[in-house]
Amino acid sequence: MTPRVFLVGAGPGDPGLITVRGLDLLRSCDVLVYDRLVSPELVGEAPDDAILIPHDGHRQDELNRVLVGYGRAGLTVVRLKGGDPFLFGRGGEEALALAEAGVPFEVVPGVSALSSVPAAAGIPVTHRGVSSQVTVVTGHTCSGGGPDLAALARTPGTLVVFMGLATLETLADGLLAHGKDPATPAAVVASGTLPSQRVVVAPLAEIADAAAGLESPALTVIGDVVGLAGVLSARTRERAPAAA
Amino acid sequence: MTPRVFLVGAGPGDPGLITVRGLDLLRSCDVLVYDRLVSPELVGEAPDDAILIPHDGHRQDELNRVLVGYGRAGLTVVRLKGGDPFLFGRGGEEALALAEAGVPFEVVPGVSALSSVPAAAGIPVTHRGVSSQVTVVTGHTCSGGGPDLAALARTPGTLVVFMGLATLETLADGLLAHGKDPATPAAVVASGTLPSQRVVVAPLAEIADAAAGLESPALTVIGDVVGLAGVLSARTRERAPAAA
Repeated sequence: MTPRVFLVGAGPGDPGLITVRGLDLLRSCDVLVYDRLVSPELVGEAPDDAILIPHDGHRQDELNRVLVGYGRAGLTVVRLKGGDPFLFGRGGEEALALAEAGVPFEVVPGVSALSSVPAAAGIPVTHRGVSSQVTVVTGHTCSGGGPDLAALARTPGTLVVFMGLATLETLADGLLAHGKDPATPAAVVASGTLPSQRVVVAPLAEIADAAAGLESPALTVIGDVVGLAGVLSARTRERAPAAA
Repeated sequence: MTPRVFLVGAGPGDPGLITVRGLDLLRSCDVLVYDRLVSPELVGEAPDDAILIPHDGHRQDELNRVLVGYGRAGLTVVRLKGGDPFLFGRGGEEALALAEAGVPFEVVPGVSALSSVPAAAGIPVTHRGVSSQVTVVTGHTCSGGGPDLAALARTPGTLVVFMGLATLETLADGLLAHGKDPATPAAVVASGTLPSQRVVVAPLAEIADAAAGLESPALTVIGDVVGLAGVLSARTRERAPAAA
C-alpha cells in the first residue's frame, strides 16, 4: 500500500533544516496539518490548492481523527511537526491511530532540537573527554510525576530538557537538592536556529534566574559541554537561507 | 566572516534525509571530505570539479589539518558526516580545531540516527505512557571505561546505543547483572533507513544472540517502546527516492 499520511519532521526552526524528502512531500500534498511552531516559510511551500490545517487547540484525539479521515478519503496528507516526530513529537500516538485505522503511513524523520539547537549555540552535546552520554527529558513532566531528579542528579554526561522554561526552576532546584554541583555549566537556548535565537549561559545554581526573560520554545542543556560554547560560538554564523 | 568550512550532517543513511541546506552546500563546494558511511548518491551531488577526500583511515588530527588547510586556502569545504555532527559525530573536535586556527565555520545539523533509525523500524523512542526519557550512549565505550552499567540498569525510559554491535553482549550482560529485567524488549537495527535495513527484536536476555548475524552500522534500542514495533512497522514503507 502506498502511504497516504506522512508524519514529517520540520526540523528545529530554520526552514533550511527540513529534509529534502520532507520538502518534496510538502510540495505535493493535498492536505497539510501543521504545528504552531512550524515556520511560515515551510507552510508556504504547500501547493496553492492544498487544504491547510493549523494544529492549534485541537486535542490529540481530534487531530488523529483528522489524519485518519483525510487519509481514508484517499488524499495525500502531510503532518508537519516541529523537530522530529518520534522524539517528544507525539508522532507515535498519531502513527498508532493510523495503524489501528488501517491507513498506510510513513514517518519521515526530521532534525531534532536535541543536538541542533545546542549546536546553534556552539554546544556539542557529546565531546571526547567531556561527555559520552546524553539524557533527554521533557520539561512538561519535570513537576508532578516527572523524571527521578535524584537519579538525574547522579547521571553523568549531558542533560537536555525539551520545552522546560516553565519548570526550569523546579528542575534546577531538584538537581541541586540531590547533590548536583551548583557550578555545573548550563545554557538555555530560546528560538534556536532562528534569527530571533537567544542564548543564556550560567552555572546551574543561577540558570533559572538568568533565563527569566526568555520565551518558549526553549531548550536547556546542563553539563560540562556547555563550557565549549564560548570557543565554538565565537565565529560569525551566516544565516541559512529559506527553503524557498 | 563568511564560513569557509561547513560541518554538515548527512542524516542516517537514506540520501533523501539530508537537509535542504546541507544539499545546497554540497552542490556548491570546492572540497568534499566525507565519511565512509555517507551514501554514494550524496557524494555524487558534489560538483564535477570538486576535490573529493574520503575519510578512511585518517587519524582525527590529520583530518583536522586537512579542514584547516583547505579552509585557510580560501576554498569552500563541506565536511559531510553520517547522522548529526554533534551527536557522537566528533564534530566538536573538528569545530574546535577550526576555531583555534581562526578558520570560520558553520555547523549544519543533520537527522541523527537516534530516533530516525528506530523510527524506520516502527519504534518511537518516546511515547506517552511508555517512555518520557531517552538515554544515549555509544557502544565504543561500553567496555573498559564506559558508561556506568549499574546506573544505566536503573535508568527509566529508553536506552539507545550507537555503534554497539561489537560490545552488545557486554552491555546486555552488564545490564542484566545489575538487575535489568531480562524480558525488557530490545531491538537492533542494522543499516537503518537503507534498502538493506535489517531489524532484530528480542528480549534483552536474548538480543546479543539474536543479533549475531547483523553487520555494522547498527543501533540498539532497549525499552518498552520496542513493543510498539509490531504495530507500527506493519505498514508497507515506500522507499524514499535518492536526493538526485
